[in-house]
Amino acid sequence: MESLPSSVPARHPSVLDPYVDRYAARTAGMTASEIRALFAVASRPEVVSLAGGMPNISGLPLDVVGGAIADLVATQGPVAMQYGSGQGVPELREQICEVMRLEGIRASSDDVVVTVGSQQAVDLVTRVFCDPGDVVVCEAPSYVGALGVFKSYQCEVVHAEMDADGLVPQALRNAIRATKAAGKTIKFLYTIPNFHNPAGVTLSVERRHEIVEICAEEGILILEDNPYGLLGFDRDPLPAMRSLSSDNIIYLGSFSKTFAPGFRVGWALAPHSVREKLVLAQESATLCPPQFSQMAISSYLAVHDWQGQIKQFREMYRERRDAMIGALSDMMPASVRWNVPDGGFYVWLTLPPGVNAKAMLPRAVTARVAYVPGTAFFADGFGSSAMRLSYCYPTPERIREGVRRLAGVVEAELELLDTFGDTRELRLGAGLDNPGTDVR
Amino acid sequence: MESLPSSVPARHPSVLDPYVDRYAARTAGMTASEIRALFAVASRPEVVSLAGGMPNISGLPLDVVGGAIADLVATQGPVAMQYGSGQGVPELREQICEVMRLEGIRASSDDVVVTVGSQQAVDLVTRVFCDPGDVVVCEAPSYVGALGVFKSYQCEVVHAEMDADGLVPQALRNAIRATKAAGKTIKFLYTIPNFHNPAGVTLSVERRHEIVEICAEEGILILEDNPYGLLGFDRDPLPAMRSLSSDNIIYLGSFSKTFAPGFRVGWALAPHSVREKLVLAQESATLCPPQFSQMAISSYLAVHDWQGQIKQFREMYRERRDAMIGALSDMMPASVRWNVPDGGFYVWLTLPPGVNAKAMLPRAVTARVAYVPGTAFFADGFGSSAMRLSYCYPTPERIREGVRRLAGVVEAELELLDTFGDTRELRLGAGLDNPGTDVR
Repeated sequence: MESLPSSVPARHPSVLDPYVDRYAARTAGMTASEIRALFAVASRPEVVSLAGGMPNISGLPLDVVGGAIADLVATQGPVAMQYGSGQGVPELREQICEVMRLEGIRASSDDVVVTVGSQQAVDLVTRVFCDPGDVVVCEAPSYVGALGVFKSYQCEVVHAEMDADGLVPQALRNAIRATKAAGKTIKFLYTIPNFHNPAGVTLSVERRHEIVEICAEEGILILEDNPYGLLGFDRDPLPAMRSLSSDNIIYLGSFSKTFAPGFRVGWALAPHSVREKLVLAQESATLCPPQFSQMAISSYLAVHDWQGQIKQFREMYRERRDAMIGALSDMMPASVRWNVPDGGFYVWLTLPPGVNAKAMLPRAVTARVAYVPGTAFFADGFGSSAMRLSYCYPTPERIREGVRRLAGVVEAELELLDTFGDTRELRLGAGLDNPGTDVR
Repeated sequence: MESLPSSVPARHPSVLDPYVDRYAARTAGMTASEIRALFAVASRPEVVSLAGGMPNISGLPLDVVGGAIADLVATQGPVAMQYGSGQGVPELREQICEVMRLEGIRASSDDVVVTVGSQQAVDLVTRVFCDPGDVVVCEAPSYVGALGVFKSYQCEVVHAEMDADGLVPQALRNAIRATKAAGKTIKFLYTIPNFHNPAGVTLSVERRHEIVEICAEEGILILEDNPYGLLGFDRDPLPAMRSLSSDNIIYLGSFSKTFAPGFRVGWALAPHSVREKLVLAQESATLCPPQFSQMAISSYLAVHDWQGQIKQFREMYRERRDAMIGALSDMMPASVRWNVPDGGFYVWLTLPPGVNAKAMLPRAVTARVAYVPGTAFFADGFGSSAMRLSYCYPTPERIREGVRRLAGVVEAELELLDTFGDTRELRLGAGLDNPGTDVR
């Protein structure tokens, strides 16, 4: 998903805000990151942004999309422009079931709730399940936009470790045990099994079974967030966790990466009683999700070879992944580590000890390259030596140029480190790396 | 706004729901009404629905809308289908300022936040301001969808009386005094000054000044919800309260009634520091409002005589208002009372003592006419002898036929009452009229 929107400059709560004493307690968890201002700078065209999660939709056939929508207005305009059901357009919900079948899910469209992007699905699920103080278990690292939601509902996030095969089952068991021992209530596990944002890894099939079993035994819901599942480079999609069990799992999907994000159409597939609660929450939040968007996507799916389009997207993203991995191999100092994702948008890169990715960011932006510091993806201040690099949006040439600039910045850091030792304290100042200040 | 969506049948919390012990406390305030099931029946074509708040958009020029959108896809498709700013499309926010100028508001587009319909604006404002137990002062009656939001955030609603000139200033003063005396915190006044939903009345200009002053003195925000302000039948729009003061007022607007609801585009105009909080809340809720919808509306406003279109809408709704008032005058028993709205969608009708509008509803639906019982618009169980009648959607002929059927049902009730006395207890059964069970 997109993250770190840059429309609002970073501000610290101002003593001049006349409403400061009137806000709800939850607003303490709704803070602008101090790196936002930097991202406003990073959006200048001369900066190569390896930061954003914007899909590259330049390959979409505008004539097909435009034709489908013009036809929609002409033949069904008064319905498409009217209020609709809080649950979403029935025909689209049927098509969503066809999409999910590609990952082995057999579901009734009656259990699908359409949302304003899958971001809103995370929001509504949290609204329905979480009281302040409830715990959500997340991978370490986890999606910045979901962490922001959990924080805004005053949840506590407990991270569980990942490795190259995704979430480590024993780490999940340990997190559950420790949380329960502390007398806290876990409401759900939030997990991104495929081409993880930001870690780039994919949960193995064996572990999918194991994690579904662990959560069933422990009575913990799984929130399976799967925006990237159809964007694998080398093989057919793995079975969704929701295909292994229909109980205890809420599955989230999205058209943002397989078609286009500007329509803001995602969905939740939920057990029946939960689905009813989500529809009530959706009606309270928006009355109904955008009817026009839903019918536009439904028309596109009906008239276009959308699976062929996804294949083109996969090839385009693979080329960019290859460009980034090739450039990293060619140019990065030997002490820098990264993974090679099999799909999706992201590479997770770890700097050598002593180099702080957030402290380095202003220098990177000065060198005209941007990334997201690793701390953004943790609720607890970890990740300072890591960063997320996105290869989804820039061209392969720009990606190589961005990595070249970044490698230069890292080299300069390493030279400085070599000369003066660990200078983090000197450069950072106290408190800048406070946990939780940059989850957005 | 639309209300009482009928996609989900009424259900009482089932002991079979395996998740029942895991939901957040706030879900207690997110309940389906027992009248929903009835509305599923009422949506059959043979029933004249005077219940819904759907605008009649059959007059929109589909060729103009389709052309504007086709052009948008062709010339700006990759931008319109991409993620956008959490605050909304800048050009649309400028146009929104032009729309608000028609009601005397001078504002910067920098203080506008685009929302997924103005329903979402109510949700986000409540999210930013209200802790559980906080009080929202609402008119008596008030918009059912807003009451649902306040309940879902565990707010307490305190109603203040209206008369033919809208909210009564002294009633507001009394409500504030009593609430403060009870040691409770009022976060805002929620008010619909123009062509009130459901009461149909309009706040006089004198009272606008007075209410703005009262709230400024008491340090209470005003949430001015204004979806119908441009739909007056007989005169130019009255000045918005926001035009009288830029402090302490959050103004909500919508394109749902002046253009079309299916795009789900509304907005909030807020003091600067509140605007920043709303943008953060929007990003957490949806990342960004639908970009395609926003640019589609922006294109429509740019190429079409949208003010002329609103004039057509006003004439169409006036004709329907006249049809309803004429039919009521011709056919209703003399003991029934109603107001004559100057704009908007709704007539508020009061039955004679002893006739309960909710208890009567099943008989009305059997007679193939539907309305919304008055209790839906109160958080405290009042309104049992009242109902909301909508004239916005059906044709004048259907409106007359609907009123004819309704008059027959009321007459039968009155005969029964005349024969057997007040039979409410007999017919209602215990508990059916519980406060708060049908705010949706």
